[in-house]
Amino acid sequence: MAKSTTFDQDQVLQNAMQVFWEKGYHATSMQDLVDATGLNRSSIYNSFGDKFNLFYQSVKYYQASQKSLVNKWLVKSEGPKEAIRLLFKGIISDITDQEKNNGCFLSNCTTEMANESHEVRQLLDDNRQNMEQLFLDLIHEAQDLGQIKANENAEQLAAYYFSSLQGLRLVGMLNPDRAYLNGIIDKILC
Amino acid sequence: MAKSTTFDQDQVLQNAMQVFWEKGYHATSMQDLVDATGLNRSSIYNSFGDKFNLFYQSVKYYQASQKSLVNKWLVKSEGPKEAIRLLFKGIISDITDQEKNNGCFLSNCTTEMANESHEVRQLLDDNRQNMEQLFLDLIHEAQDLGQIKANENAEQLAAYYFSSLQGLRLVGMLNPDRAYLNGIIDKILC
Repeated sequence: MAKSTTFDQDQVLQNAMQVFWEKGYHATSMQDLVDATGLNRSSIYNSFGDKFNLFYQSVKYYQASQKSLVNKWLVKSEGPKEAIRLLFKGIISDITDQEKNNGCFLSNCTTEMANESHEVRQLLDDNRQNMEQLFLDLIHEAQDLGQIKANENAEQLAAYYFSSLQGLRLVGMLNPDRAYLNGIIDKILC
Repeated sequence: MAKSTTFDQDQVLQNAMQVFWEKGYHATSMQDLVDATGLNRSSIYNSFGDKFNLFYQSVKYYQASQKSLVNKWLVKSEGPKEAIRLLFKGIISDITDQEKNNGCFLSNCTTEMANESHEVRQLLDDNRQNMEQLFLDLIHEAQDLGQIKANENAEQLAAYYFSSLQGLRLVGMLNPDRAYLNGIIDKILC
């Protein structure tokens, strides 16, 4: 009989994610993970394989939580163009509300791990494509409603929005000032 | 009498920078630095203090080399608006010409170190302000020449350009495709 899992897997992933997010993959030690999750080393190894796999699962956990957050912002919108604006405004709140200004875990993973791990790179590039598809759907809807010009190249615009989000995340780590970031958004969306 | 330094300090910093750039601060071991620089550990400690200080000097070395690169691009321009375009185009070449697609060392440092080291954060934020000032000077010049509207908020536009550069650097790590990146630049500058 397989040994039963007696801990809350979501809670463990959330706690592990917080450490990886704050410190990065390489600077996180197994002891940090033991301290954060309350599990001992053998439980971590038994349940998640190794440090890398726990990291990978933590990135996926973060990605899912960001998706929920984005959906929460989008549901408030009164149309596709407004949805795009709310998404950018949501990112600013996400930056300025953070206690520790750790940036975006996915952006941090890009610079630390995209070149080191094919698996992580694939996950991050899938996320890029999903986000660009989300923008693309909103842009097409906005074009149908006449809110964005019909001759605008929607694919290019979607890629530009994703790139702009990444830029905001990075400058937000250096200057998490709401007025400064709002000024950038005004230019992104003009 | 102080022991004479018998190595080329610039070459050592360049070699150390390559390792830190590729692996990040935490994943770089003293052995990696010994291998890359050809110095033994005691020479590194005697000349650069410790791993952190060698990292810090490497970041400054990269920053200076990027400044030279930017100046090289700008000198080719036939006016301030063209200069801004050349700067973005230069970044694309810098991304697509890289053998290993390590991204921008300064962007990588932002996500890894801005929250961990006050000194590194200060260096990165100074770089942000310098780059925004460079954009601001070009924007003002372009406004005087009627190439950019006079009622455009120049500070906001400069911050937007810097943020956009950061975004390009990040997406360039996931999708270093020239046509994709050129499409984003068309939207940034339109």
